[in-house]
This record gives sequence, structure tokens and C-alpha cells, in this order.
Amino acid sequence: MTAIPNLNIVPFVSVDHMMRLVLKIGVERFLLELGAYIEEDYRRWEGFDKTPRVGAHSADGVIELMPTSDGTLYGFKYVNGHPKNVRAGRQTVTAFGVLADLGTGYPMLLSEMTILTALRTAATSAMAAKYLAPPGAASMALIGNGAQSEFQALAFRALLGVRRLRLFDVEPEATAKCRANLEPLGFELVDCATPEEAVEGAAIITTATADKQNATVLTDNMVGPGIHINAIGGDCPGKTELHRDILLRSDIFVEYPPQTRIEGEIQQLPKDYPVTELWQVITGRAAGRSSARQITLFDSVGFAIEDFSALRYVRDQLPASGLYQELDMLADPDDPRDLFGMIGRCAQGLGPVLTM
Amino acid sequence: MTAIPNLNIVPFVSVDHMMRLVLKIGVERFLLELGAYIEEDYRRWEGFDKTPRVGAHSADGVIELMPTSDGTLYGFKYVNGHPKNVRAGRQTVTAFGVLADLGTGYPMLLSEMTILTALRTAATSAMAAKYLAPPGAASMALIGNGAQSEFQALAFRALLGVRRLRLFDVEPEATAKCRANLEPLGFELVDCATPEEAVEGAAIITTATADKQNATVLTDNMVGPGIHINAIGGDCPGKTELHRDILLRSDIFVEYPPQTRIEGEIQQLPKDYPVTELWQVITGRAAGRSSARQITLFDSVGFAIEDFSALRYVRDQLPASGLYQELDMLADPDDPRDLFGMIGRCAQGLGPVLTM
Repeated sequence: MTAIPNLNIVPFVSVDHMMRLVLKIGVERFLLELGAYIEEDYRRWEGFDKTPRVGAHSADGVIELMPTSDGTLYGFKYVNGHPKNVRAGRQTVTAFGVLADLGTGYPMLLSEMTILTALRTAATSAMAAKYLAPPGAASMALIGNGAQSEFQALAFRALLGVRRLRLFDVEPEATAKCRANLEPLGFELVDCATPEEAVEGAAIITTATADKQNATVLTDNMVGPGIHINAIGGDCPGKTELHRDILLRSDIFVEYPPQTRIEGEIQQLPKDYPVTELWQVITGRAAGRSSARQITLFDSVGFAIEDFSALRYVRDQLPASGLYQELDMLADPDDPRDLFGMIGRCAQGLGPVLTM
Repeated sequence: MTAIPNLNIVPFVSVDHMMRLVLKIGVERFLLELGAYIEEDYRRWEGFDKTPRVGAHSADGVIELMPTSDGTLYGFKYVNGHPKNVRAGRQTVTAFGVLADLGTGYPMLLSEMTILTALRTAATSAMAAKYLAPPGAASMALIGNGAQSEFQALAFRALLGVRRLRLFDVEPEATAKCRANLEPLGFELVDCATPEEAVEGAAIITTATADKQNATVLTDNMVGPGIHINAIGGDCPGKTELHRDILLRSDIFVEYPPQTRIEGEIQQLPKDYPVTELWQVITGRAAGRSSARQITLFDSVGFAIEDFSALRYVRDQLPASGLYQELDMLADPDDPRDLFGMIGRCAQGLGPVLTM
């Protein structure tokens, strides 16, 4: 054994390894630490290459590549969105990603990102809420109790101490599932029959519904002064959750305006409607919450830099956890110019039956 | 066991599996069959989504994503180009790729593509030469005897019957390596001391040099009438191999003009210089070789559709070869809305030590 790593090997974190990693670290600690990685990357936002997603569309959905780089590392995520998949027992969204060394072009990590995306979305929401939610917020309405809901709940408890949740979903089974997952973890839960009931007394409203249409999960009269709205579900063209009038009463914070104007709640507004970039709040260049009666809205659609942060975080956990497998993914001939000879030597190793 | 596949599993073809697959099928048969897949996709060229590569640049190189789709399948390749890598014993180019079902967004194949790219590049060259090289061409100059050279030699023998090769490289060790690999395979080889000597009597000239600069591997006086030039090495901005005067005397054939005008030999020419798209020749919409004295030039830079064809070909070999491993890459909860619950059930499986 030498100190030189095997150049052909890329560590791979499978779904099973990701679950074990989350359990080993603990979901809330994972979210807290991941939130810190995301915040760190938001602080150096200007140093990143930022590109819009590269999408391929079919009648039923989209496959997207989301690349970014900080000049030293490179990351991309492959993610699909196919709402009809659920009918066939498939996930609406699946994802995987790669972190690579920009200096050599060699991949350093391949990871499942279906679970990781759920975690990074929740960690980003809570990280934003640290700057935007009213101080001391203790109660959150959680509207939409699907795949993202429990992650949001745990992120807001881990990063902000929110323990009281008011649950609503158009499908009572979704709420029952969310309750079954969260109750053993010590949350105070109230099942609500209507969205109006859910927002009563809540300092934060999280909307994370899944319908691919312009829905109105929240109407204007439901949103009182001082509220922070964490809008997760409006995340592609034609899919919004909030009535336009709410947007007009809110101060709106976004990840990356060129993407959010296409995918977020603000697709309902003129292209030049003023919004604040979240990184500017985090670096102190722009105000976050500035008054007790202000309505703040984080119009979240998910951005490549958050995936990059998540891949960095997972990579940094590998040595201690050992929760990965080694993939023979990169050709590594003894002489880099002799790729063909490598195949020949493989043939010799396999014996005389196989010849070129 | 049921007939329903495990939705979480993605087949992965490692470097070792790819080498065994090539050896099992035979390099030349692999190139012949792969060439047929590429030709099939060129015939339906208009049905593909075509996007320029999405690149991330550093001082030392570039990482690129090359996606495409035919409306049913989706493929992308990750590929880097880092000329200095060779000094550290790394490959200049490494690659991997994914084939996915556009209808569900689910990946169907993850494959190494360093070896596969070498094969698809050579298969594309020979496929193009079937339409562009003088009939009955028996001798080829192979200028640049690096990692791509043997693949080119075998593709031209498999698809066109070329058995006589005239080798030249600025580094004699590269020619010696190429000879050592090809001589046992029954080629007639002539080592040449100069490029001028290499092109003597050759009906086809393949240039596959690696310098990242505007080089002049061929000067105008070296190219006689009737020759087909297969120019592989001019494949990024600032990297060309041919003197501009050769281009002006040739009929130029390209893969995808918006990309070739940036990366190919024709970056030396005005942006509106007339070129012919190879797919139009293959579908009969444009002439290929039309006279015995014509100089034809395939200005090849590599295009996403060729990688797509290669991934399709490899996928089709999996059932019979079994040369892949199953990666647990996609989260597959019993209830798609209960991603979080899947982690909880994983915890139960791991026993009481690990809790959420």
C-alpha cells in the first residue's frame, strides 16, 4: 500500500449508505451541520459559477442538470420531476450528484441525492428563516404533509427551536403519515381541517404542496402581519402556491433571481418586480427582517449551490463514517497514453479464451 | 421474485466491466456494431434535442456536461479535459455517462465512458469515412499515436477494411507503443520519421495529436487530391491541427456546426464558411464524396448524440453479458410520499442503537 490513492476509484454513497449516514449523525444534527455548510457557501456566493438548469422535457416531466463551481470544486446534480410517477409507485423526484476536483477534472464523490435533496431543501429553508422569521417563533403551520414535510419540521426545530406544528393537507392520510413520523420525535402537533385553521397563531407558514398547477394554498386574508412564509412548493413554471396579493404585501427573498423568476412564486409578478437575494442578507449587504409587522417571503425553488454544499458536507463525512463503496469508475492505465494497452493487459489477466 | 424490477437499482458498468465487455464482444465487432448504432442515430438526427456543452473552466482544463435526448431516452456524459494531468499520471480525459428514461426521469444505466468515448470517437470517424473516403482506400496515415490511435486503426479496419497504416508521432515512444499494440493484431505498419513520409500514398489521413495549441500537423503541400482527412485532435478553442489553406481546398463535414465552429478546425474560418452536416450526407440530403480528386475533411469534435448511441449500445449488451453491478442509487420508499419514513424503517432494521 502506498499513500497515493487509487486514481480509478470514486466513492459512491448509495441510498442505504445515505440513510445510515443520516441515522449515524442524527437527522437534526445533520440538518444543523448541513445548514452551516449552505450558509458558508451563501457567504461566498459571488465566487460561484452560476448557470440556469439545463433541462430536457417530455410530456410527463423534466430531467435537469444543475452544475456549479467555486473555482476549486465542481458539483452537479441530476434531478427529475415527474408528477405522474407516484401512480406507478415511483418517486416524483429522484436525484444523484457528483462532486469533482476542477483542477484535474476527476470526480471525487458520486452520491444519491433524493434523500440529500430533501435534507438540503429543509436546511436551506431553516437557514433562511434564521434571518427572516420573527424572533422567537415557536409555532409553524405546515401546509402540505408530503415527502418534504418531516424534513422541514426537523430543520426548523434544529436551527430555530420550533416545536409546535399545525398540520394540514388536502389528503388526511398525508397528515396522518406526517404525524406518525413526527409524534415519536417529541413535536407538539395539531391536525387542522383547513389551511385557515393551520395558520392560526403560527409565526411561520411553510407551504410544501405537490400539485403541478397554479394553486392557491394561501389566500391574502390568511396572512397576518409579522408572518414569515417559507414557500417550497412553487418550483417550476405553472406551479405556484400563493395568491398574487400575498406577494404584493411581502418582502420577497430568493436564491437566484434568473431562476426564481421562471420557477418560483414570483413568476406571477412582472419580470422587474423588486426582490432581495438571500446571499445579500446573509452577508449583511441587504436587510432581512426589519420590522415586527413585515411579512417576509422566502420564495424557494432550490439552487445548484445548495446541492454543492450538500455534496461537500457528505464528502467530509466519508472518512469518519466509512459509509460508501468504491466504484471503479475512471480508467487508470499505467501509461495515460496507452488506454488500448490497458484493455490488452486485462485480456491477459482473463486468460487465453478472450483475445482482442 | 416478481417481474417488477427493483426501482432503486441502476446498472453500473465499471472500467473493468467495460474492458471485459469489449473483450467478450471483440474490439472490432464492438466498433462495427457501435458504428451502426451511431449511424442509426445520425439518420434520425432531427429528432434529437441538441444543446451546446455546458462547461466549467479552470486554469488547467474544463469539465463539461453533454446532454441530449431523442424524446424517449435521455443521455448525458460528464467529461473533463486537463492536458497537464498526464504529468501526474492521470488521464487527460476521463468520462462517465448516464442513460435515462425521459418518461419517468429514472436513470437506466451509469457507465464509465473513458474507454467508451475512445471507442465511439473511432467508430464515428470510420462511419463518416464510409461516406467520405475514396472507395477502396487501403492505406491510412495515422499522425499522433497516443491514446486514440489504436481505436482509430481498428475502427477503420472493421468498417472500411483498411489494413495498412503509416505511423508518425513527434514522440517515437508513442509510435513504438502503438506498434506494439497493433502489430499482434495483423496490421501492416510503417513507422515514419516525418508527417510528410506518413502521408505518402495514403488515401486517408487521420490526425489525432494531443497538444493544446494551434499546431500545424499538416501543411497544405502534404495533402494531395482525392484524400480524406479525418481530423480528430482539433477539438477545443485554440487547439487545431491543420493549416488553414487545407481547409480552403477541402469540402468540410461536421457533426453539429454551432459546436464545431467553436471547437473544430473551422474555428480558423469565418463563422459563415459553408460546411456540410454529416447527418445530411447519411440521410442522402447532401452529397458526401462526389469526385475522385475532391479532398474531404471530417472536422470531428465529438457530439452528445454519439455518446447517447454508445450508452444505448452498452445498455443493449447488459442482459446477455451480465457485465455490470447493481447500484442502490434511487430512493424507493413503499409510499413515495413517505421518504422520511423510509429512513425510520432503516433505523429499525439497524437495531436500537441508532435512533432518529
